[in-house]
Amino acid sequence: MTTGESFPMNGGDGAFSYAKNSNYQREASNTLKEMIEEAIAEGLDTMSLISSSNTFRVVDLGCSVGPNTYITMQNVIEAVEKKYNSQGHDGSNKLQFQVFFNDHVSNDFNTLFASLPPERQYFAAGVPGSFYDQLFPSTSIHFTHSSYALQWLSKLPDELLDRNSPAWNKGRIHYTGASNEVVNAYASQFEKNMESFLKARATEIVSGGVVVIIMPGIPAGVRYSELPIGILFNFIGSCLLDMANEGIIDEAEIDAFNLPIYAASVKEMTKLIEKNGCFTIEKLEVADPRSKIPNLVSAQGLIMHLRAGMEGLFTKQFGSQNMEEMFNRTTQKIPEIKRWLESGYRKETQLIVVLKRK
Amino acid sequence: MTTGESFPMNGGDGAFSYAKNSNYQREASNTLKEMIEEAIAEGLDTMSLISSSNTFRVVDLGCSVGPNTYITMQNVIEAVEKKYNSQGHDGSNKLQFQVFFNDHVSNDFNTLFASLPPERQYFAAGVPGSFYDQLFPSTSIHFTHSSYALQWLSKLPDELLDRNSPAWNKGRIHYTGASNEVVNAYASQFEKNMESFLKARATEIVSGGVVVIIMPGIPAGVRYSELPIGILFNFIGSCLLDMANEGIIDEAEIDAFNLPIYAASVKEMTKLIEKNGCFTIEKLEVADPRSKIPNLVSAQGLIMHLRAGMEGLFTKQFGSQNMEEMFNRTTQKIPEIKRWLESGYRKETQLIVVLKRK
Repeated sequence: MTTGESFPMNGGDGAFSYAKNSNYQREASNTLKEMIEEAIAEGLDTMSLISSSNTFRVVDLGCSVGPNTYITMQNVIEAVEKKYNSQGHDGSNKLQFQVFFNDHVSNDFNTLFASLPPERQYFAAGVPGSFYDQLFPSTSIHFTHSSYALQWLSKLPDELLDRNSPAWNKGRIHYTGASNEVVNAYASQFEKNMESFLKARATEIVSGGVVVIIMPGIPAGVRYSELPIGILFNFIGSCLLDMANEGIIDEAEIDAFNLPIYAASVKEMTKLIEKNGCFTIEKLEVADPRSKIPNLVSAQGLIMHLRAGMEGLFTKQFGSQNMEEMFNRTTQKIPEIKRWLESGYRKETQLIVVLKRK
Repeated sequence: MTTGESFPMNGGDGAFSYAKNSNYQREASNTLKEMIEEAIAEGLDTMSLISSSNTFRVVDLGCSVGPNTYITMQNVIEAVEKKYNSQGHDGSNKLQFQVFFNDHVSNDFNTLFASLPPERQYFAAGVPGSFYDQLFPSTSIHFTHSSYALQWLSKLPDELLDRNSPAWNKGRIHYTGASNEVVNAYASQFEKNMESFLKARATEIVSGGVVVIIMPGIPAGVRYSELPIGILFNFIGSCLLDMANEGIIDEAEIDAFNLPIYAASVKEMTKLIEKNGCFTIEKLEVADPRSKIPNLVSAQGLIMHLRAGMEGLFTKQFGSQNMEEMFNRTTQKIPEIKRWLESGYRKETQLIVVLKRK
């Protein structure tokens, strides 16, 4: 089996840990609770799905180390039980749940396992590996969830590093504000990844089973540099360039660095799902996650979340000795970042996808 | 869900690691390959077992961190495939395998996952938790294996520490050479554990599914102090008493310490399986594992294996600062241990159990 590159979140529970800086993702899970309930209540025929074994198998793809994954899995289970009971089961034939927590093999499964809720009413298992590969036997899964994981590209397009390519991404750390060639190179890699993802899920999921995907989205016709995260990437990029000008790092290191992060539009997602052909689209939209979480996206909060999720990536390229410097310089720009954030950036940054296996 | 105490093997791959000092267990797995093949070839009707899903689910209970577990799981899969193909499948309906690696939540699953064989032809999952509890949905497992794990008692009988009990185990670290009351307290705890184990497996395993258990065994009428490991426990106990006499440790610490290890006889295992009532006994015997592994049980090898498997336990009680001293003193007694090992100890130390779910 092959796996893509992995980008583990900051471990432990310190100030910059993912566990302490994932409340955006957590709030996202909470606000999506209703949506998941709806998808299950309307879309799922539990009786026909689990006809033979009475076991309902749920997967969280890209689960990281909790606690968000536990909350979401609990929401899914409660919604499925509600639906199951509403379908006239008398309780003599109790539904059993098996929950598979998936992430890259470099994920801290030890921490994940140690924090499993003791009161859980399901059988838990961890599954290491890339979700761009098949991870489960065919037709064995009833519900697949993935929250803020599909934005991670399995690899970076080679041409970003090629001086002779029009897609050479000189002086930038992302496709934010870059040339069309750079944007297209990223888009093409996302397309390849999504094709693998859908193919693997189509194999694993039983007919009638559901896929829920939450990931960064972008409204039609909007540029990445109009999204809060794009604004932040640009500021970090300019801090790094400052550091290069002062001789702290080498500018070539910036040229050679690209964040493997992508935000998808409804249009391109629709095209990819239709190309795959195995799923019906139950829901597909970009939403404003802040509608239910006011003031969540502060400049400071954004930087802390980014640090928890991506410090490892920056460290690998620029060295741990430069991390304080880089994040301090970015923090010093908070007033400027704030002005940008307040001056009409686009709020619909969350892509919501609900699919049903034909 | 409740879990018993856990006693993780030495981690990493250093000189005293389990990974480097588990060749006894590995050789045991290898010599048992034939036995597993036979159990599968004769006892397993793969066609009726996996009628609906084509997925064959295998579990290794108490898998530790490899590599032994990978070898055994591979052996199981090859034997099942052979049987499946011999039952006239034309290859159009390929069997899929899902392998669940189970151990305590404190096991190093990160290391286990990182070393999974890249060429594996199965879907791997890790399942944290005590195998004295149910770990899987009911009737979802086809083959369960457990090698050198069931000797670990989930807890120590309280009376071993009770000064007023006839089972107070003063001055000893195990029931080797202890009073009948101490032996009975251990036996009674093993009985409780085994009842929980068999109950959980009976629920999880499909009718016709197989359970293979390898664990330390003891021939009828033999005392633990006549087994190599018992001889070693007695020597370590006497080294600790020497250290107490020299004031290095406190004798009360020895009184309060008991190794939670048990070796079962054919007679008591038969009784427990019959009491459970859900399994037929396909094989149940004590064997000499050395018949195929000459000279494996050297005094030095025995000490290294014991250190890899139990150093954590001793450290917890006597402190890491005393480990070198304790193992050095034991190593100095190798000539004496050798004389004991050569003077007619009992060789049938491996209990082999093959059960079939009714």
